Amino acid sequence: MTTHYFEHPLNEKTRIYLRVEALLNQLKTAATFSDNMQHLVFYRSLFDLLEIFEQIQLKSELAKDIEKQRLTYRSWLNIDGVDQNMLRGILNEIDEVHSQLMSAERFGQSLKEDRFLSAIRQRFNLPGGSCCFDLPALHHWLHLPEDNKKVDANRWLSSLQPLASALKLWLNLTRETGNFRDRTAHVGFYQSDADEANILRLEIPMHFKVYPMISGHKNRFAIKFIDFSSGQASTSDIEFRLAVCS
Amino acid sequence: MTTHYFEHPLNEKTRIYLRVEALLNQLKTAATFSDNMQHLVFYRSLFDLLEIFEQIQLKSELAKDIEKQRLTYRSWLNIDGVDQNMLRGILNEIDEVHSQLMSAERFGQSLKEDRFLSAIRQRFNLPGGSCCFDLPALHHWLHLPEDNKKVDANRWLSSLQPLASALKLWLNLTRETGNFRDRTAHVGFYQSDADEANILRLEIPMHFKVYPMISGHKNRFAIKFIDFSSGQASTSDIEFRLAVCS
Repeated sequence: MTTHYFEHPLNEKTRIYLRVEALLNQLKTAATFSDNMQHLVFYRSLFDLLEIFEQIQLKSELAKDIEKQRLTYRSWLNIDGVDQNMLRGILNEIDEVHSQLMSAERFGQSLKEDRFLSAIRQRFNLPGGSCCFDLPALHHWLHLPEDNKKVDANRWLSSLQPLASALKLWLNLTRETGNFRDRTAHVGFYQSDADEANILRLEIPMHFKVYPMISGHKNRFAIKFIDFSSGQASTSDIEFRLAVCS
Repeated sequence: MTTHYFEHPLNEKTRIYLRVEALLNQLKTAATFSDNMQHLVFYRSLFDLLEIFEQIQLKSELAKDIEKQRLTYRSWLNIDGVDQNMLRGILNEIDEVHSQLMSAERFGQSLKEDRFLSAIRQRFNLPGGSCCFDLPALHHWLHLPEDNKKVDANRWLSSLQPLASALKLWLNLTRETGNFRDRTAHVGFYQSDADEANILRLEIPMHFKVYPMISGHKNRFAIKFIDFSSGQASTSDIEFRLAVCS
């Protein structure tokens, strides 16, 4: 039986983190340029990231959040029953990622200063604007040998590495705080309290043919399941699995 | 030696036609959903097309242009030296495509009325907005079996078939009017007269490491070659091939 995996952020900052994670994954996959359309995904993801960097102070937000995790894990040092080896491993990783983050440039700074990227960024959002006549420099670039393109892509991606490492660590540690439990949404509805939660993770069996609409905040949330074919609220009892991650 | 193929429209309408052609090609390729990112290209292309349909009366423009081609080809009937069999073949194709076009719905009408597409269209343009929590219905759809997705994609694509056929015919006939000739841009610059031309087609050897910036209109145009690495106007003599298509 196939399952629909689903994650929902319970605050605006985590929403941005998950979007940035998705964009970084797309960038990485598309950077192989293995078909003649992956550059569309690559550049779109890169420019979406730049737009997000312009909207929020991602670096300082992330540094604060990693620092908070460091304090939590430090408070478990020398506590009986806590695996001290594992704990020190995590703390070392946090230290490393945090110091990389602090010495990194402002996210996207070198990308914004890249003449080639700046030249193509504006027109890329026109509907159908990735034609050769709209973006002649890009189309020259597309004709370059694979290796040249990969060198460029790796240079751009490496400038995002401190962000990628920090975000991955924060999300990993956050996701690990939650354990999946069986839950039932009676007549398609489920609600519960949460304790300073950041992410809800759901596993929904596909045979129910529903998707979730989730509202809420860090301390309380509600899940309404929607019937995919009708677009209306489901009236079935939906058995799903839920992990609340803080 | 590799070559950079390049097309430039000499009027706004042809510019739209070439963009629509590129979007239709992207749609068709992405509709195989053969990797986990092609849906991004597929939906983006589909929504870009809808945006173009809202901006211009594409159907009536295209019908007028096909009609113009019909008149041109008809004027060659019974003229000595013109291959009458081939001519009648083209005229039959024009008749068929034109009547399909006239009996088609307003471009994009059924796509705009599709509840699923409408639900995901708005959020798709958010930076990073294709995450599951932004588009839960889309993420349910992505978990559906391949066959279901292809059925949907084919239904959406088939509503665009009259447009695709008419555009393909018009662009084919237009492109065939031009013959490639060797040209030299002295000190990186070339200009010439044209006679009611629609499209310039260029073949530029990659070893010059330049791309073209083209300005002009249907009766006159100028090509300035730009050095890719410096972003400045090239001062070399560039040998390239040019076809002027009307």
